[in-house]
Amino acid sequence: MIIQLQPDISSKQKETLIEKVNGIGYKTTEVRTQLGDYIIGIGKKEFDIRKIGQLDGIRDIHIVSDEYKLVSKKWKAKPTSVDLGDGVYIKDGEMAIITGPCSIESEEQIRKVVKHCVENGIRMMRGGVFKPRTSPYAFRGMGIDGLKLWHSIASEAGIKIVTEVMQTSQIEEMYPYVDIYQVGARNSQNFNLLDELGKVDKAVMIKRGISGTIEELLQSAEYVFSGGNEKLILCERGIRTYEKASRNTLDLNAIPILKAKSHLPVIVDPSHGIGIRSYVSQMALAGVMAGADGIIYESHEIPEKAYSDGQQTLDFAQSARLAAWIRESFAMRKGFDLL
Amino acid sequence: MIIQLQPDISSKQKETLIEKVNGIGYKTTEVRTQLGDYIIGIGKKEFDIRKIGQLDGIRDIHIVSDEYKLVSKKWKAKPTSVDLGDGVYIKDGEMAIITGPCSIESEEQIRKVVKHCVENGIRMMRGGVFKPRTSPYAFRGMGIDGLKLWHSIASEAGIKIVTEVMQTSQIEEMYPYVDIYQVGARNSQNFNLLDELGKVDKAVMIKRGISGTIEELLQSAEYVFSGGNEKLILCERGIRTYEKASRNTLDLNAIPILKAKSHLPVIVDPSHGIGIRSYVSQMALAGVMAGADGIIYESHEIPEKAYSDGQQTLDFAQSARLAAWIRESFAMRKGFDLL
Amino acid sequence: MIIQLQPDISSKQKETLIEKVNGIGYKTTEVRTQLGDYIIGIGKKEFDIRKIGQLDGIRDIHIVSDEYKLVSKKWKAKPTSVDLGDGVYIKDGEMAIITGPCSIESEEQIRKVVKHCVENGIRMMRGGVFKPRTSPYAFRGMGIDGLKLWHSIASEAGIKIVTEVMQTSQIEEMYPYVDIYQVGARNSQNFNLLDELGKVDKAVMIKRGISGTIEELLQSAEYVFSGGNEKLILCERGIRTYEKASRNTLDLNAIPILKAKSHLPVIVDPSHGIGIRSYVSQMALAGVMAGADGIIYESHEIPEKAYSDGQQTLDFAQSARLAAWIRESFAMRKGFDLL
Amino acid sequence: MIIQLQPDISSKQKETLIEKVNGIGYKTTEVRTQLGDYIIGIGKKEFDIRKIGQLDGIRDIHIVSDEYKLVSKKWKAKPTSVDLGDGVYIKDGEMAIITGPCSIESEEQIRKVVKHCVENGIRMMRGGVFKPRTSPYAFRGMGIDGLKLWHSIASEAGIKIVTEVMQTSQIEEMYPYVDIYQVGARNSQNFNLLDELGKVDKAVMIKRGISGTIEELLQSAEYVFSGGNEKLILCERGIRTYEKASRNTLDLNAIPILKAKSHLPVIVDPSHGIGIRSYVSQMALAGVMAGADGIIYESHEIPEKAYSDGQQTLDFAQSARLAAWIRESFAMRKGFDLL
Repeated sequence: MIIQLQPDISSKQKETLIEKVNGIGYKTTEVRTQLGDYIIGIGKKEFDIRKIGQLDGIRDIHIVSDEYKLVSKKWKAKPTSVDLGDGVYIKDGEMAIITGPCSIESEEQIRKVVKHCVENGIRMMRGGVFKPRTSPYAFRGMGIDGLKLWHSIASEAGIKIVTEVMQTSQIEEMYPYVDIYQVGARNSQNFNLLDELGKVDKAVMIKRGISGTIEELLQSAEYVFSGGNEKLILCERGIRTYEKASRNTLDLNAIPILKAKSHLPVIVDPSHGIGIRSYVSQMALAGVMAGADGIIYESHEIPEKAYSDGQQTLDFAQSARLAAWIRESFAMRKGFDLL
Repeated sequence: MIIQLQPDISSKQKETLIEKVNGIGYKTTEVRTQLGDYIIGIGKKEFDIRKIGQLDGIRDIHIVSDEYKLVSKKWKAKPTSVDLGDGVYIKDGEMAIITGPCSIESEEQIRKVVKHCVENGIRMMRGGVFKPRTSPYAFRGMGIDGLKLWHSIASEAGIKIVTEVMQTSQIEEMYPYVDIYQVGARNSQNFNLLDELGKVDKAVMIKRGISGTIEELLQSAEYVFSGGNEKLILCERGIRTYEKASRNTLDLNAIPILKAKSHLPVIVDPSHGIGIRSYVSQMALAGVMAGADGIIYESHEIPEKAYSDGQQTLDFAQSARLAAWIRESFAMRKGFDLL
Repeated sequence: MIIQLQPDISSKQKETLIEKVNGIGYKTTEVRTQLGDYIIGIGKKEFDIRKIGQLDGIRDIHIVSDEYKLVSKKWKAKPTSVDLGDGVYIKDGEMAIITGPCSIESEEQIRKVVKHCVENGIRMMRGGVFKPRTSPYAFRGMGIDGLKLWHSIASEAGIKIVTEVMQTSQIEEMYPYVDIYQVGARNSQNFNLLDELGKVDKAVMIKRGISGTIEELLQSAEYVFSGGNEKLILCERGIRTYEKASRNTLDLNAIPILKAKSHLPVIVDPSHGIGIRSYVSQMALAGVMAGADGIIYESHEIPEKAYSDGQQTLDFAQSARLAAWIRESFAMRKGFDLL
Repeated sequence: MIIQLQPDISSKQKETLIEKVNGIGYKTTEVRTQLGDYIIGIGKKEFDIRKIGQLDGIRDIHIVSDEYKLVSKKWKAKPTSVDLGDGVYIKDGEMAIITGPCSIESEEQIRKVVKHCVENGIRMMRGGVFKPRTSPYAFRGMGIDGLKLWHSIASEAGIKIVTEVMQTSQIEEMYPYVDIYQVGARNSQNFNLLDELGKVDKAVMIKRGISGTIEELLQSAEYVFSGGNEKLILCERGIRTYEKASRNTLDLNAIPILKAKSHLPVIVDPSHGIGIRSYVSQMALAGVMAGADGIIYESHEIPEKAYSDGQQTLDFAQSARLAAWIRESFAMRKGFDLL
């Protein structure tokens, strides 16, 4: 169960409430986020909801039997809008476009991508400064200095920064320079990292695990939310299956399912989802029709020269066309009476 | 290698040709389809293509090193158009819509679906009369009598029939009443069935296996083609993965990949692909944007009363809307300069 | 529910029984096998089992709520023993060893393998005469003539024949020459084939599907049993997963699970299960310890020259050693107090 | 390429060597472990190995083209022996047995498990003090105080401690109390954690990822080794597949493959591998026959009362029998002439 508290609930009232909830055999966890205070009750016994609902200091109470609770649509039907400032949002009813290279490589490269974004009305840029690599001998990114450089150029142009955080010790140093912390597929169940991101007041985008279930993605989001951070975005990026003709199997089924189960915005990464440049645009548009609230894809001035992921990266001409098609498709989909 | 023969090649010329090809260490298979005669050469040695290409009686010769050859785009860049008569086609550049119930249940049911198709400009109807069921105690379909009944009603209305053939012994009895033989996911590698369907001059739609690879789907199509039948359609219907929130994982990545590898038309089955009624439309439209040449989905007057698959079946109002959206989306996609 | 009938039940008594069962809302299917007559009741309503159990002509009645019923251990705790004649069995408490080449290739090859079997006390030989091949251009086996030849040599030596049947039309022509019909992984859900094999009184070995679940394997066996044939053997041969370092992923978990759920004997195919010659023996022995009632593996005089599957085939020296190790390991396992 | 350096190589000699290697187009990484110094060369060009091999200060040079190098058997055929002190080893040719509860729960529980280990000659005990949980509301373990308590009891009894480390910040505080740091399946590609564990001189056991490939497991081990720590153990614990009859699919194929590719010891976790108590023993013994160097399984005085994983945990009587069977089976396997 989720109990939303009044902002002015007294500690006495809260104590009484917790005693009552424990009294019916439920364990309680207190959650304080940027937007509100909650008591989460964990248990299985049936009880009369009115007996608790009538206590003082309570705004509302909801029965949510799923393993994930705060990210569920069962208590919060209204979609979450993630506000990044300067009129940039990721939310239901709008189409977020995020593009940029796999790795941040140089000042020159950053300037070119920022310019490309500005010219195409794209307000969010992706790029890695800390790179998770399966081989210890591969390029691991420009690090925090790369991020600072990027931030100085992007913020001037009004471009928001989306970049991966790989461990808790990076959260603080990255904080001034990042708009959305990305949790990568390999860290999707790094619970310590999720816990710590719950304490931050910047947006967090969680990628689905390499073989993560939809349920597990929602539970990972629950970690961040219950840690105190409601600014959450979910990202489908393809899962691992037996099929080897594509890098991953982009599971677009996940889009309508996540949108139905959760109030959080959901975006799609077609670059990792298929892994082959000439098919990225099709899959991006398929993601739009499946109901995504945004598309994140890789672009680079000269993909063949990118330090990593070049084979799935669009050049600027392709990216410009794709951005336009995404918007057209989204406008059409909004006209349909879909869920 | 694929050698296309002149229609008027003499047996002497053919003999010389086969000797030459065997002489360079290649095994040969002769293939005669509705549209042409071919010699397929199987081998790995390098050779000078001109030495064979200059022989008499040859129209063209192509090196195709894939395991599948005749269905490959490498020798036939022009997309295959499957002509069902009466102006009904499945082909690149058009959008085929196929709908109908999981199982054919009764005359009344058939009449209602046919009427629904006619009213919505849908020219092809699906339905099962032989039903593959995991349990031997489940409803196994109306059989050949159901098919005859269906044919008498549908053909009058100009509606083409798509239905599953489960074994070779059914091919002949079904022949007068069927427009497209469907090979189900469980029979996708039933090579005897594929062989026999190669001898038929009606269209064959092959569904991807429950855990079939894209490569295997093309090889299954190669069986039918090399058996003599070029009227082939490929169908993505979802694959088996670890994810259990949906019935299958609709692998839309397969669409652009199949379209790039093969000259055959490719359609999508979102009903089996996600298995949940309220998400079928989104996935159908996603399929359109991914590049499909057609959509096949389940519909029924009262899905809750369907003998099978009711949970993934649209009612007629939903179906009518979806058909319109599919056409709108397809028209938009055609305007994009996608592969 | 499964109702075992008395052999001397009168048609009147049977009629009364069926009426009663229908009366509580259950559909009935009559099953007659080599060993007994049964009425299968399909339904979900609760009922008083005594009301039916006291009717005349009934031997016993069992509630089995699984999708598979006749192959379940819930009504028949005693393990099924498949008797192949001449003292050859596949059954719980013994260790069946089956070996031979992937494909039957020639008289000389047959004679050598038969000799190898005889010398090592192996009573069952495997080999394919009809070969399912993903490519239509590959070797498809020696066919029925190969089987006849094989039978004449093997039966003289007291060796039983295990070979794959690919379609219903082959069942009858193979009948005089086969001891165990093998249903291959690609035909594991070819329900017509399973139906027809239910009418035969020779043993049937069903391989798990390429991505078949344990539940589906039991349901496929249910088809054969409910068709009238109790002489059934289940075979784990590896499943398709994302891991590509081995040909398949041998799922030895399936062994104790199948043995707990069903009364049928279960054997393991380590050759297809791992697909790499030098690891076949380890996996065979692992299968023994996991609880298998038999091991089926590929052997050939000169594996490098085998027409197919050479890379996973043992030579005779390796095979002889493996057979001895299997027996030693099995003897040890029997001494343990395992399930 | 891997270049093993002489312990007394001069910095001048090393400089010359690195210049030479760079000169042929290879990038170099220096690696210093507890046991030796190495230069790793990364590149693809062919070169004459003698030109480098004859330089001063070099012990040996090996071409290893795999993505993983230092953990490969290609340069170090001799199996790695992990020495835990007091005569406790994990190594090829011995059978390590590790048991204990999923979670460390209380002093009383620790004492009982330690006693059980001592009585059965088991020298290593597993248990979690930091628990990764998919739900933020579940029990997360006793933490560092639990570990200290455990260490004080276990070390007195000569029992070595195996426990999971979840993040880099825990490494140092755990150091005095742990004998083997376990990297859990969810952290198998947490590269920062692996990097940091490379700096430690205690053993590290890496579990295969939830859907990790064999190749990825070796690459994760490469991280630790190239970070400076050669004391490594690999653990197969089941992978995620479509099959839901068991918790995971224990991939015993991985055992002979890992043993053939790497010089590191390999152990099997049948508890997580199948997830059902009554089948754990069979799978443990199967693991022994597949070639494992050790078995790690869960045990608890009263599994039904365990805080976590009770359904896959053995009681002490079952554990005692299993330990004896593992030893008997291992003794038999050693007698076989397997790889």
